[in-house]
Amino acid sequence: MCVRAIIPFKPVNPKTRLSCILTQEEREAFARVMLDDVVDAVSGAGCAVTLLCTHPFEHAVAATAFNEAGLNEALNACLQKRTQPVLIIMSDLPLITAESVRRLLGTASDLAIAPGRGGGTNALFIRKPQAFHVDFYGASFCDHVNIARKAGLSVDVIDSFRLHTDVDEKEDLVEILLHAPGRTRKYLADLGFSLSVEKGRVGVQRNPHKEAR
Amino acid sequence: MCVRAIIPFKPVNPKTRLSCILTQEEREAFARVMLDDVVDAVSGAGCAVTLLCTHPFEHAVAATAFNEAGLNEALNACLQKRTQPVLIIMSDLPLITAESVRRLLGTASDLAIAPGRGGGTNALFIRKPQAFHVDFYGASFCDHVNIARKAGLSVDVIDSFRLHTDVDEKEDLVEILLHAPGRTRKYLADLGFSLSVEKGRVGVQRNPHKEAR
Repeated sequence: MCVRAIIPFKPVNPKTRLSCILTQEEREAFARVMLDDVVDAVSGAGCAVTLLCTHPFEHAVAATAFNEAGLNEALNACLQKRTQPVLIIMSDLPLITAESVRRLLGTASDLAIAPGRGGGTNALFIRKPQAFHVDFYGASFCDHVNIARKAGLSVDVIDSFRLHTDVDEKEDLVEILLHAPGRTRKYLADLGFSLSVEKGRVGVQRNPHKEAR
Repeated sequence: MCVRAIIPFKPVNPKTRLSCILTQEEREAFARVMLDDVVDAVSGAGCAVTLLCTHPFEHAVAATAFNEAGLNEALNACLQKRTQPVLIIMSDLPLITAESVRRLLGTASDLAIAPGRGGGTNALFIRKPQAFHVDFYGASFCDHVNIARKAGLSVDVIDSFRLHTDVDEKEDLVEILLHAPGRTRKYLADLGFSLSVEKGRVGVQRNPHKEAR
């Protein structure tokens, strides 16, 4: 079984909630290293990768497609064309490992879903793509479970913090410095980020000698 | 193998960061239902349970011990006395399932650790309790990994969002309403909590007709 993995990607001005600590140039480089870690893990688990990009973009390993339509419309058009299983997975999961991806692919159910923090969906493994459609944004975890149930598809919720931890805010960088196995941790360390402990709580700090170039 | 599970528990004025939305009486009841869900999961995985309590407390199922010393001192005194494997697990993990506990107990390593969000430790399975000691508070995940490595113990990081998700702040209640399988979700629903979606982000709201009694 060759699974096609589709990774939506926004190469231009991503992760704006990190603007307080990263310049636009840094956020774009940061998004690319997170993407590379996801591509590595997904490839390591045996998938062929296509990036679905909001802007023209080239990648050393993955195929790329330029998406002018909305995310849901573009993904659903892909699903309608495919007869083999499809993995849809977000590009901002730097704690990911090939092992965590294998847990998605190894499900005995029709659909495996990795919830994101706060009701989102970080990954979907869809065994019968023509029987399902996606509805991202908002409480998409609930929406995806309901869409599957209405279609008579069995659902497996994958219990993984590596797939649960997406990166949107400064405090999320703590998880990268603690648990990311790939190059995203090194990228942040090279920018001068390190863990700080204040009043018993763990945060991140940035060495001012490594400010944005 | 009978594993002794030790659950630290604070029955009086717990979870003060939830004071904005729960009265002290509600926070104490909330802590007890979360504890019950953890006791159920741990018992379901075959462990015998002892609660280590900051105040006198009785529980229908679990043995209880009253701890006047600090948490680390009390836990380390327990570890020094035991020759069989010990599980130390937090009481505020309402997403827990017996299956997630079994993943801890099923490790092939000397130590299995479930990290909490923000550098904490939510569970430790310790195969050789006399060869290890705990150091909770602060970045305890890093501390526990280092203590194990210095003692020559192999470490397995358990990849579970059910064990990763502890409950401290209002936004954590979202995860309970979405993913908690036990009675904690019902407790919050009975108090009038439900999910809300604003500007694409999922939060919780409380029905004012079910205000604190």
